[in-house]
Order: sequence, then C-alpha cells, then structure tokens
Amino acid sequence: MHQQESCLAVRDVLSRVGDKWSVLVVSMLSDRPLRFSELRRTIEGISQRMLTLTLRGLERDGLVTRTVTPTVPPRVDYELTDLGRTLLDPVQALAAWADGHRVEIARARERFDRKDPRKQD
Amino acid sequence: MHQQESCLAVRDVLSRVGDKWSVLVVSMLSDRPLRFSELRRTIEGISQRMLTLTLRGLERDGLVTRTVTPTVPPRVDYELTDLGRTLLDPVQALAAWADGHRVEIARARERFDRKDPRKQD
Repeated sequence: MHQQESCLAVRDVLSRVGDKWSVLVVSMLSDRPLRFSELRRTIEGISQRMLTLTLRGLERDGLVTRTVTPTVPPRVDYELTDLGRTLLDPVQALAAWADGHRVEIARARERFDRKDPRKQD
Repeated sequence: MHQQESCLAVRDVLSRVGDKWSVLVVSMLSDRPLRFSELRRTIEGISQRMLTLTLRGLERDGLVTRTVTPTVPPRVDYELTDLGRTLLDPVQALAAWADGHRVEIARARERFDRKDPRKQD
C-alpha cells in the first residue's frame, strides 16, 4: 500500500468507492435490486444528475449492473454484482463508524468553530 | 441507519471521512505524527491547498490535532486523536479492499469503455 504504484491505484479506486454517494448507493442495494426512482427517494438530497453519475461510475467499476426491462415506460433496475457485494463489509463498517461517532464529531465541530470562527467550512 | 435523521448525519460524516484524501491522510498518520511537509511528500498528487483543507477538516472533526512548535521556521505536527485512531480500522479495511480489487476494477473499466465509449468518465 505504501509502494508508489499500488498507492496510486488505491487512491484512484478510493476516489470512487469512498465517495459518500457511492457508499450510500452500495448500502441501499445490500438487500435487493432497486429501481432508479426507489434509490432517488431513499437517498434524500441526491440530485437526479448525481445519482445518474454515481450509478454509472459504479457500473463502470463492475460493482453494479443496470438492467433495462422494455416495458412502457422502461423499467431500470440496479443490482450489486458479486464484486460489489464484497464491498459491503468495508462500506458498512465505515457507515457504522460514522453512525456511532456522529454526536462526538458534531461536538468537536462546535468546539472548533467556537475557538476559531474563521476556520468554518 | 435507515432512519431519516441518523441517515443525514451519517451522510454528513461520510462526506468528510469517506473522502479519498481524508482516508489517505488518516492512513499515513497511523504510525506516528507527521509534519505538513512529510504528508505532502508522501501523498503524491495532493496540492498544498487540498492538504491544508483536508487537515483542517480532520482537525475540525476532532480526528487530528495540529501542534505548532515555535522554532524558526515554526514546525507543525499532525497527529491522530483517540477518536481519529478509532477510524483506522474501517479506513484500512476500505483501503485494503481497494488494493485487493484494483486489477479487477481496472478490467471492468476497460470492458465498460469498450462497450460504450460515450460513457467514459
């Protein structure tokens, strides 16, 4: 991991799968395939364009399949691939960490912003 | 996790700690404190500005401390806090996943781009 070539590849992969929207989409698909509209509804705050880009990135990385059923209107389902399922454990560990420490982090932010208001994000 | 409020908080936390640069900085600090210049050298491709922003975000979240030693020139060290150390396990699991699957993902991308060149990122 600390070797040059490997490190670059890891960074490249992380920039996709470590992305917050990718993490959320992968988590949502853990139980069953979902349609675009279901994902859009469940992941509040994601724009149509960002969801499209996120799903395309995951499809390109071989983590998600996109299946079009030619009904009227066409139905599009997204499902984790076998490779995508191997990402569930690390992704859910990260999400559990975030869930478990959100109060602590919110407090740290308050302290930081009180101490130096210029540094607010 | 699928409850509304919790989900929003998790997304907010993930958008910081799931960020590729944050993941790399936290990993680099696993062994010992590092100076800004050491981090900059080790994380190839990160700009001075992006490293500054990433470190400030991690400091604000209570994951990293910044210690200034008033030498000439001043020396600035960054170190993981106890909270920051709890992030090491999930972050390293994600990095190990990325490292272990980078060849497979590179192949998936090639296949995808061959199939539909319009869809390239």
